[in-house]
Amino acid sequence: MLRLGVDVGGTFIKAGVVDESCTIVHKVSVPTGGDAGFDTSVQHIAHAAELAAQEAGLQVNDLASVGIGIPGLLNPKTGVVVSAPNLSGWQNVPFRDAIQKLLPVPVYVGNDANCAVVGETLAGAAKGYDNVVMLTLGTGVGGGIVADGKLFVGGQGLGAELGHMALQMDGAVCGCGMKGCIEAYCSVTSLVKQTLRAMEADPSSAMHGYAKEAGLVDGRTAFECSKMGDRAAVEVVEHYCRYLANAIGSLVTAFRPDVVLIGGGLSNQREYLMDKLNALLPRYVFASDLIGVPPIRRATLGNDAGTIGAAFLDRV
Amino acid sequence: MLRLGVDVGGTFIKAGVVDESCTIVHKVSVPTGGDAGFDTSVQHIAHAAELAAQEAGLQVNDLASVGIGIPGLLNPKTGVVVSAPNLSGWQNVPFRDAIQKLLPVPVYVGNDANCAVVGETLAGAAKGYDNVVMLTLGTGVGGGIVADGKLFVGGQGLGAELGHMALQMDGAVCGCGMKGCIEAYCSVTSLVKQTLRAMEADPSSAMHGYAKEAGLVDGRTAFECSKMGDRAAVEVVEHYCRYLANAIGSLVTAFRPDVVLIGGGLSNQREYLMDKLNALLPRYVFASDLIGVPPIRRATLGNDAGTIGAAFLDRV
Repeated sequence: MLRLGVDVGGTFIKAGVVDESCTIVHKVSVPTGGDAGFDTSVQHIAHAAELAAQEAGLQVNDLASVGIGIPGLLNPKTGVVVSAPNLSGWQNVPFRDAIQKLLPVPVYVGNDANCAVVGETLAGAAKGYDNVVMLTLGTGVGGGIVADGKLFVGGQGLGAELGHMALQMDGAVCGCGMKGCIEAYCSVTSLVKQTLRAMEADPSSAMHGYAKEAGLVDGRTAFECSKMGDRAAVEVVEHYCRYLANAIGSLVTAFRPDVVLIGGGLSNQREYLMDKLNALLPRYVFASDLIGVPPIRRATLGNDAGTIGAAFLDRV
Repeated sequence: MLRLGVDVGGTFIKAGVVDESCTIVHKVSVPTGGDAGFDTSVQHIAHAAELAAQEAGLQVNDLASVGIGIPGLLNPKTGVVVSAPNLSGWQNVPFRDAIQKLLPVPVYVGNDANCAVVGETLAGAAKGYDNVVMLTLGTGVGGGIVADGKLFVGGQGLGAELGHMALQMDGAVCGCGMKGCIEAYCSVTSLVKQTLRAMEADPSSAMHGYAKEAGLVDGRTAFECSKMGDRAAVEVVEHYCRYLANAIGSLVTAFRPDVVLIGGGLSNQREYLMDKLNALLPRYVFASDLIGVPPIRRATLGNDAGTIGAAFLDRV
């Protein structure tokens, strides 16, 4: 049986026809039209679904279901999107009802970070595990939890906002308006801020030359210069990793996953990042001397995780 | 059908015969004998169960099951207790297998704080709710979660150690050896430390006279003197409540419960504590302006919560 998975981003909608083995057999990408308001972007999403089916030689009717991941806060049971900051006019909108009217097969909806952990658990780095925590490190920090083989979303499906759990009481201001959230320390946005501060404090740092050549300061700047032994860069990376390891440790203490996955652009730092995090983790996990800690691994499906996970939202 | 619930503490074992309506029809209390090693305390637990049945005019055989709450880290599926700091010799012991040999009906085991949230959800302050987070504030901070009507214990049943989640990176040293845990700020032990510090800093504080009369400094000292308007006591209470509200906010962000319960001795501060926490909570919960916050309430079953919850471990 084929399914359709749709990953709605602020700029593009990616839709893929996914088979039972979690392979994307065909995928398309169309503009979200997020600025054009709710009704228009809903039409774009339906269009993306139809296009993906069509190009795979099918009709939407031929598919078992359509699953859709949304970058925002939503209740998967009612299908109401409470807030999706990157999509204009998406506040308290009955998204599933609206899109279901345009599509002839059952529609399921979920948060995009939740779709990613489902995809990685079914077909990626956490395949075969029943308990998984995934953090997607990007502009923000997205979180997803699989517990006992089921997606864990909390009451009304509005929980599991792991990036906004506490890491530092009265700490750095977060994009959400609160202080000291995990996201305020562990997002790439925060890493870049920390990098810029370190560069300002040390004009002799190799990060200046690296950034000039690259044309920008981004999540790579400190990491790449740390690999070259630049002292200021090493400090930025060590500091960042300690906060991230503490955040992961706190989540392990709560959820006791079999494996922790790191997704998002920063996961391209691969073993350089994972080795540091795995070395730090035991000191931040309750009773790690007695019960050990799970491994931290890089998510492997990249952007496809969200599409595959969305396709299987009905199953988890 | 009657069940037996057993709440094992460091000093006493409380065993109660519980009916279908979650009423304890008879209860007994016997010494734990926790210093005498694992085998002896297991015998004491079996004896407590037999005694409670006997005094209710029954035999253990007449009961549907025996549920046992243990103050420690354990895997409810395997029945292995990894660690129970207040019970001597209880490290990596096959507790359920051992006690099952002594009792003729099915035995279920769980963590004591988890039993408490089950009891309160079935018969106490969270009755009728499907999603509940409970913190028991005492020497430490115990945590329990009911999600979608089921007890949530994390992978291998070793999660939900809410007292050891992060609240302050590199913060106060916790009894567990880590730094900045919720317990290091929100336990009564920590409140007493904060009270003593404030007393030392302000010899004119009314807390000195209050403690002298009471014969000790305990969790009540700052709260009672705060009610009388003592400036130093007010500061201790405000500081304590801010940390506790931030901890609760972080848990709400993760679990989105319908209600949050506070148990343990400090919950005797009733509305004085709950009103402060409820007023502070919105600033510590993600998207509280859009989706509100759950109420924080006092647990109502006291010590019986653990006994009742243990009796129904098989059901949740």
